[in-house]
Amino acid sequence: MPRITGEFALIERYLAPLSTGSEGAFGLKNDAAVLDMAAGERLVVTVDCMVADRHFLADDPPDSVGQKLLRVSLSDLAAMGAEPLGYLLSASWPPDTQEAWVAAFCEGLARDQRLFSIALLGGDTTATPGPMTLSLTAFGRVQGNEVLDRASLRPGDDLYLSGTLGDAFLGLQILQGRIDGLSPAAREALVARYRCPEPRVALGRALLADGLAESALDVSDGLAADLGHLLEASDVGAELRLDAMPLSAAAEEGLARLGSAPEILVSGGDDYELLFAAAPDRRAEIARLSETLSLRLTRIGRVKAEAGLTVLDAALRPLSLGSAGWTHF
Amino acid sequence: MPRITGEFALIERYLAPLSTGSEGAFGLKNDAAVLDMAAGERLVVTVDCMVADRHFLADDPPDSVGQKLLRVSLSDLAAMGAEPLGYLLSASWPPDTQEAWVAAFCEGLARDQRLFSIALLGGDTTATPGPMTLSLTAFGRVQGNEVLDRASLRPGDDLYLSGTLGDAFLGLQILQGRIDGLSPAAREALVARYRCPEPRVALGRALLADGLAESALDVSDGLAADLGHLLEASDVGAELRLDAMPLSAAAEEGLARLGSAPEILVSGGDDYELLFAAAPDRRAEIARLSETLSLRLTRIGRVKAEAGLTVLDAALRPLSLGSAGWTHF
Repeated sequence: MPRITGEFALIERYLAPLSTGSEGAFGLKNDAAVLDMAAGERLVVTVDCMVADRHFLADDPPDSVGQKLLRVSLSDLAAMGAEPLGYLLSASWPPDTQEAWVAAFCEGLARDQRLFSIALLGGDTTATPGPMTLSLTAFGRVQGNEVLDRASLRPGDDLYLSGTLGDAFLGLQILQGRIDGLSPAAREALVARYRCPEPRVALGRALLADGLAESALDVSDGLAADLGHLLEASDVGAELRLDAMPLSAAAEEGLARLGSAPEILVSGGDDYELLFAAAPDRRAEIARLSETLSLRLTRIGRVKAEAGLTVLDAALRPLSLGSAGWTHF
Repeated sequence: MPRITGEFALIERYLAPLSTGSEGAFGLKNDAAVLDMAAGERLVVTVDCMVADRHFLADDPPDSVGQKLLRVSLSDLAAMGAEPLGYLLSASWPPDTQEAWVAAFCEGLARDQRLFSIALLGGDTTATPGPMTLSLTAFGRVQGNEVLDRASLRPGDDLYLSGTLGDAFLGLQILQGRIDGLSPAAREALVARYRCPEPRVALGRALLADGLAESALDVSDGLAADLGHLLEASDVGAELRLDAMPLSAAAEEGLARLGSAPEILVSGGDDYELLFAAAPDRRAEIARLSETLSLRLTRIGRVKAEAGLTVLDAALRPLSLGSAGWTHF
């Protein structure tokens, strides 16, 4: 297969088609792109960078790399309650990059553009002697003055997690050869969650629009680590119930094959589920939202006034945090 | 000197202070940033990527690397006629990056933030086993529906270049050891222009606001190459006068020491001057604008109906384009 040719050919053949339908992208022929905002709207922006073999694996299918790159940023927008509008791509390609790889990568982007009703607005491509480095800036909008933020936790609030915990972490263990003997269905489900997260865009927008939650974040570095940042920002603490954690059947099977207890998942990363806080009197509304979205929204703990994070096992005994994560004493 | 420590310490110590004054940056503690736009404003966005030893030199002063990264994107905003608002930074650091390097890099950003009245809105930092890779997304705004674009050239239009041509190209030749024996003042001036371009923000805004120009771009890949893209987009041609090119005294000295004719500068890159087209009946206004801005605005050629770019020497003989650039037959 041919390697990628000049920058301009690459842009014209693969990237410019991704800007179709976005008038302000000028077919990627301009110095910059233009984005129209309506009165009363606020722009929400985020950037995420992925380096080959650190944030994705060099032999991951290239379409899923495109999807993951986009979805990681859409997940950030979701955590603010924003509606996605478009994105910019900055890509540094190593000299051995195959044109077929770029074509498939762009197919993944195109698929998700349709799914999330967005388009490419512009970008920059460069050569690099290092690993492939992909940086994506995503744009979204919110109506009015409020966004979901990270600093509005109140003692007594319930803590919720969307979807299920740990699938992506277990998917990475599979790809790194640390789990054997899984059923093909479980293997496929877990690997898919590592390669292609589900940004909870509809959930974030509903939480903001309905005023159900004031604080949210997307879990990327691990539930415990990310919750830690949330607690610090609000100067409060929290208690998590390990037996409440939403686990998929595939994750249960993966844990069994790995010979690990569920607490390992509290420190695993790459979930891209939303962690959010809501007042206890909103439980019925959150249950209805869960039904409307066909998305599990699980109460996994609560906010406390005292600083610090406590993780309780099924017998309500606190685990302790060691170098290998949360464990029994 | 210590190497950089964890991502969070780095963000807190060096990057978060750059977001001071930007309410929507949430002190870099949120998933994304919020940007307010007023009614009637349009957002202009651009991203640029720089890889160490390709777009800057590993031993360039780190503050100038920060400034160049920011200014290259501000130059894109200038070419659209936009007013800068803020930026996102995506940085991939090699493991041997020194904390002092990051500190000085951020000092360069801070200096230019004050100069251009903007602030950091957010970002992402990652580790990389490859060369340092820096990607910056800049935000700007324009009033109303118009921007300077690349596809509105009309036959008969004058072509103008801001500032002077080729200083940055010659600065790079100096840093690569290809020019000896220059006066210290010329050396300093040329190297400074390579390391720290001047984004023509005030010029771009004035050209748009006064309706003086409809097409503009910033010269980054070389005057001839960039003009070629402009001509293609408008389906026209152009004629450039080599004897009209604005050269600094330092560039004249550099050319003499390099033993090269001025035509070499038509293909040199990194100028970040604005190239723009205006109708001949606007010459007096453009001369006044040049005085107001204290910035040379030089008529270097004109747009023709016939496709193709012609470069004329002082005797009005056309040069030909070979593999080494524009030369005499």
